[in-house]
Amino acid sequence: MIPRYESAELTAIFSDRNRMRLWRDIELAVVRALADTGGLDAAEVAPLFEREVIVDDDFVERVLAREAITNHDLAAFVDVLQASYTTAASRFIHFGLTSSDIVDTALSLQIVAAMELMLTAVDHLLVTLRTQSYQYRRTVMLGRTHGMAAEPTTFGAKLALWTLALDRERVRLVRARRQMAVGKLSGAVGTYSNITPALEARALASLGLDPAPSTQVIGRDRHSEVIMALASTAAMIESCALEIRHLARSEVMEVQEPFAPGQKGSSAMPHKRNPILAERLCGMARLARSFVVPALEDVSLWHERDISHSSVERMMFPDAFQLVYYMVTRFDRLIADLVVYDETMAKNVANTHGLIYSQSLLLAMVRSGLDRDVAYRIVQEATTQVLNDAGELGELLMKDERCPLSADQIEALTSLDRLLVNLDPLFDRLRALEGSQWISIS
Amino acid sequence: MIPRYESAELTAIFSDRNRMRLWRDIELAVVRALADTGGLDAAEVAPLFEREVIVDDDFVERVLAREAITNHDLAAFVDVLQASYTTAASRFIHFGLTSSDIVDTALSLQIVAAMELMLTAVDHLLVTLRTQSYQYRRTVMLGRTHGMAAEPTTFGAKLALWTLALDRERVRLVRARRQMAVGKLSGAVGTYSNITPALEARALASLGLDPAPSTQVIGRDRHSEVIMALASTAAMIESCALEIRHLARSEVMEVQEPFAPGQKGSSAMPHKRNPILAERLCGMARLARSFVVPALEDVSLWHERDISHSSVERMMFPDAFQLVYYMVTRFDRLIADLVVYDETMAKNVANTHGLIYSQSLLLAMVRSGLDRDVAYRIVQEATTQVLNDAGELGELLMKDERCPLSADQIEALTSLDRLLVNLDPLFDRLRALEGSQWISIS
Amino acid sequence: MIPRYESAELTAIFSDRNRMRLWRDIELAVVRALADTGGLDAAEVAPLFEREVIVDDDFVERVLAREAITNHDLAAFVDVLQASYTTAASRFIHFGLTSSDIVDTALSLQIVAAMELMLTAVDHLLVTLRTQSYQYRRTVMLGRTHGMAAEPTTFGAKLALWTLALDRERVRLVRARRQMAVGKLSGAVGTYSNITPALEARALASLGLDPAPSTQVIGRDRHSEVIMALASTAAMIESCALEIRHLARSEVMEVQEPFAPGQKGSSAMPHKRNPILAERLCGMARLARSFVVPALEDVSLWHERDISHSSVERMMFPDAFQLVYYMVTRFDRLIADLVVYDETMAKNVANTHGLIYSQSLLLAMVRSGLDRDVAYRIVQEATTQVLNDAGELGELLMKDERCPLSADQIEALTSLDRLLVNLDPLFDRLRALEGSQWISIS
Amino acid sequence: MIPRYESAELTAIFSDRNRMRLWRDIELAVVRALADTGGLDAAEVAPLFEREVIVDDDFVERVLAREAITNHDLAAFVDVLQASYTTAASRFIHFGLTSSDIVDTALSLQIVAAMELMLTAVDHLLVTLRTQSYQYRRTVMLGRTHGMAAEPTTFGAKLALWTLALDRERVRLVRARRQMAVGKLSGAVGTYSNITPALEARALASLGLDPAPSTQVIGRDRHSEVIMALASTAAMIESCALEIRHLARSEVMEVQEPFAPGQKGSSAMPHKRNPILAERLCGMARLARSFVVPALEDVSLWHERDISHSSVERMMFPDAFQLVYYMVTRFDRLIADLVVYDETMAKNVANTHGLIYSQSLLLAMVRSGLDRDVAYRIVQEATTQVLNDAGELGELLMKDERCPLSADQIEALTSLDRLLVNLDPLFDRLRALEGSQWISIS
Repeated sequence: MIPRYESAELTAIFSDRNRMRLWRDIELAVVRALADTGGLDAAEVAPLFEREVIVDDDFVERVLAREAITNHDLAAFVDVLQASYTTAASRFIHFGLTSSDIVDTALSLQIVAAMELMLTAVDHLLVTLRTQSYQYRRTVMLGRTHGMAAEPTTFGAKLALWTLALDRERVRLVRARRQMAVGKLSGAVGTYSNITPALEARALASLGLDPAPSTQVIGRDRHSEVIMALASTAAMIESCALEIRHLARSEVMEVQEPFAPGQKGSSAMPHKRNPILAERLCGMARLARSFVVPALEDVSLWHERDISHSSVERMMFPDAFQLVYYMVTRFDRLIADLVVYDETMAKNVANTHGLIYSQSLLLAMVRSGLDRDVAYRIVQEATTQVLNDAGELGELLMKDERCPLSADQIEALTSLDRLLVNLDPLFDRLRALEGSQWISIS
Repeated sequence: MIPRYESAELTAIFSDRNRMRLWRDIELAVVRALADTGGLDAAEVAPLFEREVIVDDDFVERVLAREAITNHDLAAFVDVLQASYTTAASRFIHFGLTSSDIVDTALSLQIVAAMELMLTAVDHLLVTLRTQSYQYRRTVMLGRTHGMAAEPTTFGAKLALWTLALDRERVRLVRARRQMAVGKLSGAVGTYSNITPALEARALASLGLDPAPSTQVIGRDRHSEVIMALASTAAMIESCALEIRHLARSEVMEVQEPFAPGQKGSSAMPHKRNPILAERLCGMARLARSFVVPALEDVSLWHERDISHSSVERMMFPDAFQLVYYMVTRFDRLIADLVVYDETMAKNVANTHGLIYSQSLLLAMVRSGLDRDVAYRIVQEATTQVLNDAGELGELLMKDERCPLSADQIEALTSLDRLLVNLDPLFDRLRALEGSQWISIS
Repeated sequence: MIPRYESAELTAIFSDRNRMRLWRDIELAVVRALADTGGLDAAEVAPLFEREVIVDDDFVERVLAREAITNHDLAAFVDVLQASYTTAASRFIHFGLTSSDIVDTALSLQIVAAMELMLTAVDHLLVTLRTQSYQYRRTVMLGRTHGMAAEPTTFGAKLALWTLALDRERVRLVRARRQMAVGKLSGAVGTYSNITPALEARALASLGLDPAPSTQVIGRDRHSEVIMALASTAAMIESCALEIRHLARSEVMEVQEPFAPGQKGSSAMPHKRNPILAERLCGMARLARSFVVPALEDVSLWHERDISHSSVERMMFPDAFQLVYYMVTRFDRLIADLVVYDETMAKNVANTHGLIYSQSLLLAMVRSGLDRDVAYRIVQEATTQVLNDAGELGELLMKDERCPLSADQIEALTSLDRLLVNLDPLFDRLRALEGSQWISIS
Repeated sequence: MIPRYESAELTAIFSDRNRMRLWRDIELAVVRALADTGGLDAAEVAPLFEREVIVDDDFVERVLAREAITNHDLAAFVDVLQASYTTAASRFIHFGLTSSDIVDTALSLQIVAAMELMLTAVDHLLVTLRTQSYQYRRTVMLGRTHGMAAEPTTFGAKLALWTLALDRERVRLVRARRQMAVGKLSGAVGTYSNITPALEARALASLGLDPAPSTQVIGRDRHSEVIMALASTAAMIESCALEIRHLARSEVMEVQEPFAPGQKGSSAMPHKRNPILAERLCGMARLARSFVVPALEDVSLWHERDISHSSVERMMFPDAFQLVYYMVTRFDRLIADLVVYDETMAKNVANTHGLIYSQSLLLAMVRSGLDRDVAYRIVQEATTQVLNDAGELGELLMKDERCPLSADQIEALTSLDRLLVNLDPLFDRLRALEGSQWISIS
């Protein structure tokens, strides 16, 4: 990931140093479990636990130097780790294990950690969205379909739907996290040839993981579920960012990204204030989505495994998490600081000259006995006149002899309040999310 | 979908006729709910329920003809449906609804029906896989990593892992089905401007659906979850089909696709028996995967909706379901009828000349006190000799003075039984799936 | 492809019947070439050319019935074709060939035919776009960046850029067609084991194709280039359709899709006139794009071939061509019949209150000696006032003491003509395309 | 890109420092062109050319610090560049330009430079492949279809087809490079409002670029052509790497990746020598492919531009080039150093017991008068016996009374030389590539 979009926490999680720390922890967890269960002589391996081997940048360098010889990263690591001890017990490190036992289990731990960071950010965004939903609950604005004025809604209702959509993504992310809270220590082809299922369970439990029945590697359907959940979350934020961009465009101008003093919207045109963050979020979603197919291609490995998935994952996991984390956290700030022009919203509603009531008027005409298609054509004709600047829809229908509605009826039907009377249950659904945290649903 | 890969049941589900039947049912469910709750006069609309309007090919033709005028499929349908009645009450059809209320709710019903067909097929495949797992539980074969002989496993163990993998896909499919068991009848921009939430809930309940808070349309994250679950299932089957292809290749020849009398493997070469079904399944997975990105792109609609998702869905849903259903059902038959050459499996194990015991021998040498890296190099040298046809690994190590193991020890270590002693817990996991059906986990 | 989006010509090209006709033609071309070059006895095979075997629906049915036994489509075809003759010479049909010789060569012929249909449609669209470019050459409208008013352009300039973009796509399509104008008749693994390179060249020449050095099959990089060219063309049309949607939205309303009498924009809201075709084109581009990855996955076949690409291609080629052909031909009509509101375009320019001149004013201030950053801030402040409805940009700067420009200078700078004086060379480029046809550039 | 797969040259090309150097060069090229053509006073701007502003890490830091205020990278750069001069003429930097003029033109220069590096590597690989083709021209091996023994080929023929395939990719890369050798300096919405087409042409020529008619930005179809060419090249290498993996598997063992002293194939199993580089190349192709869809999505920008493409491109271009460059250069070494076991190849041919002659025998039987289907079944039966270890195909047919061929005829037909007699023209095609360099075809 390029520095511009990077989170330091995620970079740390996916760093060589952290990976090797996890490798060390897993190697030692197995030795300990072997000693605890009599698989190794507890006294003989005790020296391994007397002091912790420090995995710092220097350690990483030594492993990379060793890898230049072994052409195998985990084998190089094992060599260096063993050499870090003076005790002959170091030969029991990696006893009965294959590289993938360590590498895959560590990858699970990294993904779980990254996912927890993500979920915390999602929880925060959920609060921001919910708070803003309440804030703008009664801020009336145009609802639009096909980019055309349809019927009114409120900005809060829009935000409430986003909140609920994000909650669905949260559920997907939580499930994906649970799928990845597994390790495997079952050896070369997953047959426990030199380790037992009980030993695996014991060692993994000490790391907070469950065993996953595996070939040499954990099934990549689990990993691809993570990528799909991230891509889905990115798509959700993209849809919101797209909305912000639309509402911010010159002719609509209902919201605006915060614009700091000193900021330059354009190097050429001093008048520009562009929704560049929302645009960036849309671009990022394209990349976030693009990881799904490689992740699914990784599922098909040869026999008990080939290593074709590894290069993909080395790049894909950090990049996918970084991208979506950036999206979640920046979108959070964007929503928190969004400039909302409620007067322009009201003006844009007024500018429809009553078109937004076309359905209500149609239904009333049907109810009063008119054939639906006949009523439709009458209202449609009137709306054409409105679009030609001939007046307000209600007034035009008052003058239309074919329209069976009285002026009073039309008056009553062309009321914003009437259209928005049923929005409360939507906000009731938000109440149910209050105080909810991902930890409680996992 | 081309006829070659088509399931008649799925074709029926996604046919124009079925779609319009569902449209009819939803329209009437709303009228009934309105009448039941006083929103319409029950007596006045009663004639609509006196006889069912038949939606047959002729009806469909009339709608398509009408659509040529309205340029709007649902509007055309409403016109034709209303014209199918002689009662003036027909004007109350579609009362307070927008097209998407009908179209989206019907799409949910189609997807739910297609998913139930899929899950039934998955349940069947699960039984086939589990049965074959038990069948080949003790059929020893080479485990291979990187396409190279590694350590032995059993064909049953391989199948058992597939069974568990399919069960994970089943869970994803069940979740996706649940996500789609929703409808929406909340009108033009989802604000219930001319219908109430209570009415929506009542009408949807009669169709077996829950309400989904929506804009004009149901959030497309739900639909993309369906596509992702299908793509994931396809990837799982691809991984198994790839394995079949590998095991069937001339030099391995451990399994073979069933080959019928009269069949021709090649138009040129009479000796060919190719794993063409497994190859086809691999190709199909590529297409099944390819729908994920369009499905995720569909999530971002303009404002309360645009209709860009519609053309995608008209093609994607039938095609994705047809593809994956074909994959599930044909893979089922392939596994049920697979020709398994257990003698060749045994021969291929024997042909490794003991290489498969390299890890066990290494570990015993470490346990006896040798430094791990020293032991590794001793065994590695011996394996190089084996690869040069110099003999069996165990025998070569018996002659190697550096090897601390006795001949008896080596004899004991080079035993297939020893390597496969820990496979029982894997089959215990299969027991838990016995009798399980998707309906019970949904 | 679903009937809704189907072209009858493309359906015919990709039909079973046409495919089998091409198979027949290729089989006979080889026999003839063998006879011509002495590989077979001309007199002996002469009866094969006495009357043409009719490949009609009945023939197709017989092949499909036979395939149920052979489980091999081409082998079934050869059996049926041979049985269609009464002469013993029929045994020389398929002599020295493998299935892929016939199947791949026929696929090339289908793709070439489909591509020529496509290119003819593209040529037509090119004329439509160019004609409309000239038509609207001086129709001034807002240029917009980030959805915000930037500087003016003309609608004709916009269309001229589309014309040039389409011409680039045309070049890609022409190249892809040329890549596919190849066949192969080199036998089982492409080694000409039972046929000669000279014979191949002769037979292919009679079909209008060049030989392609091949394994058993033609390299799938050629096929994927076709799919990429189609996807790129789809992306180009999507970008134009997206622009139409933006220009058609209520608040902009500068263009509108043609709206026929009787059309219904919405089943609920009689006032709606939605850009549904442009939306549909955007959706279709998503699917057209999605074929690229499967096409590229198909490149990697096992050894001299596996058949995993076949199922992909059976579906992908008809669907990709149908989709993009629909897009090209419907977009053509959309552009030809587009309703353009030049007055609204002018009004929207005027509504910027001179913001569009901000750069020109900035540059003049710099030229007169002001530091660029200082000038930028002065103009930026004035534009903020304009956005707050405080007046026209030029007038505000006239009142600003820091602005070194005279009223006359400002007057001269705030002129649409001045901004659009350099557009002629763009239209000169269009002249170069006049009369150009794909055939002339291939 | 992670360090593991990084090329220092590409990292330099896509570094912030190089980008800003290019920005500087373009800014000054415009000032110079303006001065040369009288657009600016040559004497007044002369101080700008007296000494070069050094763009080093410190400069980059200052721009990033400034960007924290402007929230606009190019605007920050212009501020810092101007501040690097003491002359008031610095205000003419960026005169009449918009950010995209600089940013897009610089991106073109970066892509062109990266592509030239790529093409040089491709040229090198082409030589390696061609050389090895000649080397193994007569090394007979099994051709395989569907993973099954088919007919023989030579390893050189396989490599020759790869060489020709790479040459096709080279053509695609050269075309993509040519598409990107364009810049744009036409201002805010591409209308030359404050710069002339002649000035643009002059300034771009000094940078080695042609003008591209543009909106605010260069059409992204050009950029996506680059990504598609890279993805296609990756797919080509993947197909070769897949073949290496197949030929290296234990049961085939015809080739092997070079294995260095000290290398460890597995941390658990000392006998393993895995084709890990070929596997890695396959994985990388998945990611390289995945950029195509985002690149095509970038084509659709709003109106004259939005900036959603920018975040995609910041990550995609360096990553795609790095990935494919790694693939090309490592595959080159892999092919150069590949261990080829010609004896095993010969043994595997012999192990088919004459199955490879089934087609030749079939054809001879047809030629001698037998009906094709009858002959097919006779040979098919004999091959079944061969597969059951009943002997050599030729001998079995000698004993079959239904077979019309004499023992001498069968002898003559079951000859490797006969099958491989037509391979020369393939190698003639390679001759045409000798000495060819990308520069000569561009």
